[in-house]
Amino acid sequence: MSRAPIRSGPTVVVDEARARANIARMANKARAAGVSLRPHVKTHRSPTIAGWLRDEGVEAITVSSVDMAVAFAAHGWSDITVAVPLNPHELPRCEMLTADGVKLGLLADCPSTAAMIVGAGFADLWLKIDCGYGRAGVRWNDAEGLAALVAPVAALSQKRAFGILTHAGQSYGAKGSVEVLRVHRESLERMAEARVAVAALAEREPLVSVGDTPTCSIADAFPGVDEIRPGNFVFYDLMQIDIGSCTEQDIALHVDCPVVGVRADLGHLVLHAGAVHLSKEALVDEQGATFYGMAVNEEGRLDPEQRIISLSQEHGLLKAPPSVLAAAQPGDIVRIAPVHACLVGDGLLGDQGNSGVTGNS
Amino acid sequence: MSRAPIRSGPTVVVDEARARANIARMANKARAAGVSLRPHVKTHRSPTIAGWLRDEGVEAITVSSVDMAVAFAAHGWSDITVAVPLNPHELPRCEMLTADGVKLGLLADCPSTAAMIVGAGFADLWLKIDCGYGRAGVRWNDAEGLAALVAPVAALSQKRAFGILTHAGQSYGAKGSVEVLRVHRESLERMAEARVAVAALAEREPLVSVGDTPTCSIADAFPGVDEIRPGNFVFYDLMQIDIGSCTEQDIALHVDCPVVGVRADLGHLVLHAGAVHLSKEALVDEQGATFYGMAVNEEGRLDPEQRIISLSQEHGLLKAPPSVLAAAQPGDIVRIAPVHACLVGDGLLGDQGNSGVTGNS
Repeated sequence: MSRAPIRSGPTVVVDEARARANIARMANKARAAGVSLRPHVKTHRSPTIAGWLRDEGVEAITVSSVDMAVAFAAHGWSDITVAVPLNPHELPRCEMLTADGVKLGLLADCPSTAAMIVGAGFADLWLKIDCGYGRAGVRWNDAEGLAALVAPVAALSQKRAFGILTHAGQSYGAKGSVEVLRVHRESLERMAEARVAVAALAEREPLVSVGDTPTCSIADAFPGVDEIRPGNFVFYDLMQIDIGSCTEQDIALHVDCPVVGVRADLGHLVLHAGAVHLSKEALVDEQGATFYGMAVNEEGRLDPEQRIISLSQEHGLLKAPPSVLAAAQPGDIVRIAPVHACLVGDGLLGDQGNSGVTGNS
Repeated sequence: MSRAPIRSGPTVVVDEARARANIARMANKARAAGVSLRPHVKTHRSPTIAGWLRDEGVEAITVSSVDMAVAFAAHGWSDITVAVPLNPHELPRCEMLTADGVKLGLLADCPSTAAMIVGAGFADLWLKIDCGYGRAGVRWNDAEGLAALVAPVAALSQKRAFGILTHAGQSYGAKGSVEVLRVHRESLERMAEARVAVAALAEREPLVSVGDTPTCSIADAFPGVDEIRPGNFVFYDLMQIDIGSCTEQDIALHVDCPVVGVRADLGHLVLHAGAVHLSKEALVDEQGATFYGMAVNEEGRLDPEQRIISLSQEHGLLKAPPSVLAAAQPGDIVRIAPVHACLVGDGLLGDQGNSGVTGNS
């Protein structure tokens, strides 16, 4: 369990070789399938790691906030889709970005937002379609909703790209490749249906953008699709293992957490790793037990007997077997695989600078 | 629902008058009870708000990381307890702080850590006692564990303060003042028992420090206690309402969230407010429904019919009644009361600078 600590607090450790392998695999798949890869950088929000995407030929990215678009534009990215419905108060900041030469894609979920984007005249327009996830967008088969959402497109300049976009987030509820591929097939069928309807309404053929890490990891073909937007695949995590998108050998982000207490009487270690580092994103096992991370042993294998069972703001409890507890001392380092790498990033990679560290496996 | 937005993205709104009233109430209670108030600043991590504590006579604070100690020392705080068990790798940073004149209290959960703090010679020593919460510390009635933890104290300079410290976090599982007061009475009895044992072992009378917002908000007397360390009371939140620590009129932190989508067909709004802003800390209602925040209406009252039922990384879904959905437009601002104000702070107050805004009610 004990490792030499890289820094004094909990530390994100990115395995560059694994991340680059994950990126190369997805880039090759996209090329073979004849679709563009526009990866979502919300997972890492790191210009360094985005550079590894560029090394595989990626030239366009997806972000989930205007803040992120501004940050990546400052690092030379000039083709960016903001893949959440536009917050109207952020339109002026978007305009400044395009004034700086960024080709910006904005997303509309409501007719008023679509009209606003068309009227502003500087951005590509993506209409958000709900293919069954039930979060944002207009349902693929809601004829009235689609008609209202598409109406403003009549005034859209031909110089602006126009498309329909979905996130089949229901794939996160799937277990195994059969279920994921069922979600994939169903959502592509629904997008094909929406594409026909939208093309007729707009009198213009829309591009089609899809993307979520489970379907993009497991499927090989994307019929009717122009671009894919997976994000998490760069790192993967316990949630993706649970779905079946990857193996433990693909996980490229861990958090090295110092032991600060040993409670052999209760069967747990106290780690310097809390909700602000790992996030409260949880998995629930087959026995109904909730956990927030899993330890990785010296051989790099996940150890299901060592799981984070509770998270306070700055520290957490790692359930561990007696042999581990007997040997543990404050100062030991436990390497943790997180449940959801995107939210780990928010505590460590993105904001606090407690990382940037990259290792090679 | 609609308000003039303060900034373009989700925005923390601190009600200074309410926060100052919450602080004054706790400060008065501590004075009346004859205990010191050493508030936990992890809730806000804001030197500005810590200044409001100082205005009520507070001179000592509690933090939950060395990072936080360094940040507050830079703002003139010179009496700081780091109330998580010391991470041994951070001892050198702690020493630098004391070299700068900070009176620093460090916490030990294990004998090796206690020996390290004593040997370092520059900090006050607090021994962590578990009064039933089952997280960190040695159980109040574990004679062997206490003997091992106290042993290094023989070498502690009399110039260094010495005490026992607990966090009765089990109060967070209580509902209503009767249950909270039962936890309070029980934990003080257990601390009294530990105090007698530790005094005999150390041949020195320990100080006694306790603190959690539920018991400190509801109880008026703290027999046998030297200092209290509540933190959340400055803002309060939905979790504290659920416990019974406060009323909705005491909540001093909200997040103003722009509407970015309207899904009348599914009964929800899409808000620009995600897990990075509100955290995935949840409450579960009596029907078993999970929620992450609740809307506040124009009159400042919580509206249980408008609750955040799902959070993605950067956006969330607000369940809302048909009348609200019919009137909603992208760009409207919904004021949200968070489940756990301390973790909101981490997304907005602490790291990203999307706030600092303070209003008056």
